[in-house]
Amino acid sequence: MSPLRRADLATLDRDDPLRPFRDRFALPEGVIYLDGNSLGAMPKSAPARLREVAEIEWGQDLIRSWNKHGWIDLQQRIGSKIGRLIGARPGETIVADSTSVNLFKLLAAALQLRPGRSVILSEPANFPTDLYIAEGLAALLGGHRLELVEPEGLEATLGPDVAVVMLTHVNYRTGRMHDMNAVTQRVHEAGALMLWDLCHSAGAVPVDLTRADADFAVGCGYKYLNGGPGAPAFLHIAERWQNQVTPPLTGWLGHAAPFAFETHYRPAGGVQRAVVGTPPVLSMTALEVGVDLMLEAPMAALRAKSVRQFELFAALVEQELAAWDFRIVTPRDAIQRGSQICLSHEQGWPIMQALIQRNVIGDFRAPDILRFGFTPLYVGYAEIWDAVAILKDIMATGAWDRPEHHARAKVT
Amino acid sequence: MSPLRRADLATLDRDDPLRPFRDRFALPEGVIYLDGNSLGAMPKSAPARLREVAEIEWGQDLIRSWNKHGWIDLQQRIGSKIGRLIGARPGETIVADSTSVNLFKLLAAALQLRPGRSVILSEPANFPTDLYIAEGLAALLGGHRLELVEPEGLEATLGPDVAVVMLTHVNYRTGRMHDMNAVTQRVHEAGALMLWDLCHSAGAVPVDLTRADADFAVGCGYKYLNGGPGAPAFLHIAERWQNQVTPPLTGWLGHAAPFAFETHYRPAGGVQRAVVGTPPVLSMTALEVGVDLMLEAPMAALRAKSVRQFELFAALVEQELAAWDFRIVTPRDAIQRGSQICLSHEQGWPIMQALIQRNVIGDFRAPDILRFGFTPLYVGYAEIWDAVAILKDIMATGAWDRPEHHARAKVT
Repeated sequence: MSPLRRADLATLDRDDPLRPFRDRFALPEGVIYLDGNSLGAMPKSAPARLREVAEIEWGQDLIRSWNKHGWIDLQQRIGSKIGRLIGARPGETIVADSTSVNLFKLLAAALQLRPGRSVILSEPANFPTDLYIAEGLAALLGGHRLELVEPEGLEATLGPDVAVVMLTHVNYRTGRMHDMNAVTQRVHEAGALMLWDLCHSAGAVPVDLTRADADFAVGCGYKYLNGGPGAPAFLHIAERWQNQVTPPLTGWLGHAAPFAFETHYRPAGGVQRAVVGTPPVLSMTALEVGVDLMLEAPMAALRAKSVRQFELFAALVEQELAAWDFRIVTPRDAIQRGSQICLSHEQGWPIMQALIQRNVIGDFRAPDILRFGFTPLYVGYAEIWDAVAILKDIMATGAWDRPEHHARAKVT
Repeated sequence: MSPLRRADLATLDRDDPLRPFRDRFALPEGVIYLDGNSLGAMPKSAPARLREVAEIEWGQDLIRSWNKHGWIDLQQRIGSKIGRLIGARPGETIVADSTSVNLFKLLAAALQLRPGRSVILSEPANFPTDLYIAEGLAALLGGHRLELVEPEGLEATLGPDVAVVMLTHVNYRTGRMHDMNAVTQRVHEAGALMLWDLCHSAGAVPVDLTRADADFAVGCGYKYLNGGPGAPAFLHIAERWQNQVTPPLTGWLGHAAPFAFETHYRPAGGVQRAVVGTPPVLSMTALEVGVDLMLEAPMAALRAKSVRQFELFAALVEQELAAWDFRIVTPRDAIQRGSQICLSHEQGWPIMQALIQRNVIGDFRAPDILRFGFTPLYVGYAEIWDAVAILKDIMATGAWDRPEHHARAKVT
């Protein structure tokens, strides 16, 4: 097979059906942005919409906007839209709080539904906040514990003490993707409930919660949904459980009649009961812009491009970077991975800082991972070539090994 | 005493030292806005700052903004600023989540500190979400309960089973204000902890948590702090407790080393451990604009104007509205009230709708309260006259009793 050339990738760009989406995003000139899996790029229409919400809805219509501009329905409205991206039934998904807070609510709900069972089961490589929240809940409740097993050991560990299994669909560090349907089925066979964290899945890979028969899910708005920094998160409760659980954070907007100002809590019907306090409207506004844009894109085309971008990146790592010790830690089989490629290298930190200085933006995940996300709405094929070429140059010239690249930052 | 005339109030406006602040807010022409205690008005500088954060920080600097623009420090930075408005020591106040979620965290922390005691004590007239959250926590933990007593019965109820007393400093419905110092002292004498909800206090009345020796506090950003719709809330933990409690929502940003991605939770030092997930940066931005503006205003002048506005409104109710059954339910003694006046009237709902239609914006609180907030930064004295004059006209003409004013809205 002849080696890949930049022109091959430029040709793919020319023929890319998703190419028009690139112009819908504001991206800085000269930057190759491969970190949309950490913070999605800004839709160009977001600032104008934010300005409208600030100047007209907040500034002019003031408190009346809760009714007039439907602020009170934002959580349901955006939740329904996200639901369409993850194969939810209508009324199962709602926007609220952060992923962490939502995990707490849903884990507590799952434990209510499995009163004789004391274990929350997860894997050691899950995103830390998932593990921390489960630990915190178990400590708060007493008599419960978080148990961690490698995915290969999951089936053997699924005993009668497991109440709920909590996994992140696509691993943040390696990009490995679980088989959602198969895992959910095994968990159900063991009498446990299944909670999926979709932070690296929603808007990134095809997800069908209904087909998988999942019980609960959470996910964030600021990665592939392009909802803006710290965008509110979403949560999903399968219809069959909604009226059987009372989430533990019983706030007024989850009350059956919030504006009756009753003394005692009565849960709202459906997923609305998982809402707690007043939502941050400005951040919700930007989230809706991102979600609306994502809904315009056909998921099959997104996925096909993402798979191809991974394969090209991987091929170029082998073709161009063989002289250095990069190891691809993301599974090569597309069915087993999300929309990112991760390379391990013991000098991962300074190498990534050198890349960022050269305007190739990925990120570093301890202890040794260089992470590059594929967001096919706004990342082109030739950019994959250019990113690898710059990485090669950094390695060949030793440019990564400068003092400033070794300095640690507060946020990585 | 001669009756008040509009000219008297116009004179007060002319001499008002706070008058220049009015021009710092965007308010719709012709509207008398007496609902800043529900949603504060928009600082004129908010849209430009939002645009900068969107277009430059999100759009151009992307993920780098967590370090470059200090997004990672926003919660502490804005929290410290709010701390100055409520008499906190440095490092005791932080911005996070919603008031409801923060109540949950701090009530759970208080129960940890008083392990032998099972009662959360509050009053029936507290804001519902405070009561609901306490009920939800008690149900989750088991062995605990929420007990409600009228303020007059508080002291007698403070037995050895009370772990924490949770009160809202200024009542949302009546405007009644507790004596923070005296109540806190009595609660401490009984061996219990004190949690103050400052939603209707922060930026509205002088608050000195340090002098009161309060243990915990929460409050919201979207009322008197003018932080925008659904602005994130704040929480306060007295220095002496910070490292003795582990809030139950153990999210990654409350971890001692969030970017080390460790498998187990280790709480950060200080109030940072009460932070959970990634904060909504756009909404935080607007909050900071509001808080910065509030910090420019001398609280003594704010309070003096608020007290005077109440007295004028009350005097005008008696002078102009004696023919109708309005009753002032807010305490007349300034030391016993916050920055609002509440009138009860059995036709409160349609009367308020008629007022809003005539551009006098207050709000209605079930079952029969017309609520008018005084936000001295942007409400003038003559507007008080005009509001009462319009209310008089609505009553005299029977304009309140039109079918459209009886229709109920989703949000009140």
